[in-house]
Amino acid sequence: MSAIVGIDIGGTAIKLGLVKPDGSVLSRLTVDTPAEETPAASVKRIAEGVRRLGETPRVGVGCAGLVSMDSGVLHTSPNLPKWTDVPLAQLLETELQTPVSVLNDANAFALAEARVGAGRGKDPVVGLTLGTGVGGGIVIGGQLYGGHHGFAGEIGHTSIDYNGPSCACGNRGCLELMVGRRPILNDYAGRANWTPGTVAYDLVDGRREDLTPETLCRAAVQGDPEAQACWETAGVALGSALATFANLFDPQIIVIGGGIAQAGELIFEPARRVMRERAMSAPADQPPVVPAILGTDAGLIGAALYAMSEEGAGEGAR
Amino acid sequence: MSAIVGIDIGGTAIKLGLVKPDGSVLSRLTVDTPAEETPAASVKRIAEGVRRLGETPRVGVGCAGLVSMDSGVLHTSPNLPKWTDVPLAQLLETELQTPVSVLNDANAFALAEARVGAGRGKDPVVGLTLGTGVGGGIVIGGQLYGGHHGFAGEIGHTSIDYNGPSCACGNRGCLELMVGRRPILNDYAGRANWTPGTVAYDLVDGRREDLTPETLCRAAVQGDPEAQACWETAGVALGSALATFANLFDPQIIVIGGGIAQAGELIFEPARRVMRERAMSAPADQPPVVPAILGTDAGLIGAALYAMSEEGAGEGAR
Repeated sequence: MSAIVGIDIGGTAIKLGLVKPDGSVLSRLTVDTPAEETPAASVKRIAEGVRRLGETPRVGVGCAGLVSMDSGVLHTSPNLPKWTDVPLAQLLETELQTPVSVLNDANAFALAEARVGAGRGKDPVVGLTLGTGVGGGIVIGGQLYGGHHGFAGEIGHTSIDYNGPSCACGNRGCLELMVGRRPILNDYAGRANWTPGTVAYDLVDGRREDLTPETLCRAAVQGDPEAQACWETAGVALGSALATFANLFDPQIIVIGGGIAQAGELIFEPARRVMRERAMSAPADQPPVVPAILGTDAGLIGAALYAMSEEGAGEGAR
Repeated sequence: MSAIVGIDIGGTAIKLGLVKPDGSVLSRLTVDTPAEETPAASVKRIAEGVRRLGETPRVGVGCAGLVSMDSGVLHTSPNLPKWTDVPLAQLLETELQTPVSVLNDANAFALAEARVGAGRGKDPVVGLTLGTGVGGGIVIGGQLYGGHHGFAGEIGHTSIDYNGPSCACGNRGCLELMVGRRPILNDYAGRANWTPGTVAYDLVDGRREDLTPETLCRAAVQGDPEAQACWETAGVALGSALATFANLFDPQIIVIGGGIAQAGELIFEPARRVMRERAMSAPADQPPVVPAILGTDAGLIGAALYAMSEEGAGEGAR
């Protein structure tokens, strides 16, 4: 099977890569995503990028938002507020005269990590990506589990507190509200005694708006007890959700990536501890919880791998 | 394919039935389960029952508890406290000289309802059975989803309140703690003004210990506001979990059975309402939530159907 172009549509940039079946990326390029641009204009610029990468028998696209994998329609996307019910696969196919598969970007992450990343050789694999939002996917027998409409695997919208705060998705107490970027920063703001001499304050010279999860990692490592408490709190929430995923999916491995996962043991340690305490099966039967290894390429690799498996599934589906 | 014996091992009785591939039950019998009996003695009595039902090329057994479908080992069972790590399939095979498949009873319920019950023709199907505990299963492409060890689908141990009360399983705020038989009765006990003239009081002549979920149904239907509030509360918790299942599994249908589901609209109405509000996908794309239709036969039917699909999978697996 030849290399295929995989595309990761993010909020500020679109990453394209020519991906081999083993997941290695032969060449890459990036195009901007002006948020105010119409879908048609963006599609033209994406198509230009694909042509620049060279011949491809098929294209895979990962995009944040609610995607119907069967129809290739992007229903809504947090990164692209103007894109509503856009037939993304169809628009790109018309432009490129090449079959196009579309999937959710977190699903693409999970597929890539399961097939050629930290979950390679394991089955089933649950993948989570912790960033601004929390997404993920379930890979069974090497294939993404999509459910009836291809909406499955909305792991960030697992309610872990059914009387908890409202989420934009309509649910309450979603995992995303406890371990995303914003909740961790808010949690710190609520705890911290913001004065010179405290570690996090000094790291950003008192500019609260410069605080990032990365700063809170450094502060925690340097002994800031309130920064440590934020990671512990997020890790407990995450571990509780992992216990539920272990009970529901019995995965052979759980892979966690995304910017927040860069906190490493600060969040992995409490998450593993709480999962171990709370999951039903004996600790020896519980899935290892490991960091992702493909970094920011995971989305485009997963999109390409998804397109390759669609190739095998035949062209007549849409 | 010929008819196969399916067995449902419950806390007080073991039900056996000779089941055709279409799910119809040709003949039935019941044997007692003395809780203090050793596994070996129970296995002998089960085998006698199987022989009385006639020739069977294979046997399927559903049992409450943590079951490894691959190995046929029953690790623990709430109904059978003396049964720990019992190689149930192997013991019965030795006794009967016939291949035996073992699965969790709630998984069996879900498989039966998905294949020949209320979920027939739909895919994927999420099945829940609400009784003393809450169990269930996920049926994908007509097969039970078992995960890595066959432990998957522990739907009752989805945490919906991660800081909530401790569950015997080790988790906190499990769905089972909100919609099982005991929590509903406890909820009523905490609310009710227990005096003559209130509907539930009069229904049991003031004997609190006679209160059952059935009484609380009758009281609610007759206008007892506190009984109504109990069903509403349980329904909200259930609906919240259904929203999470819709987000994770994107099922084409959700089937709910078990004794508590006999409350009908008292629990289905709030559960559907809350799922509709909270699930991510548009209401038109959300799964219907329907009552199970196979009644108390679901367990033995599902066990037989599971054994039939194992027959196709070849004998060499164990």
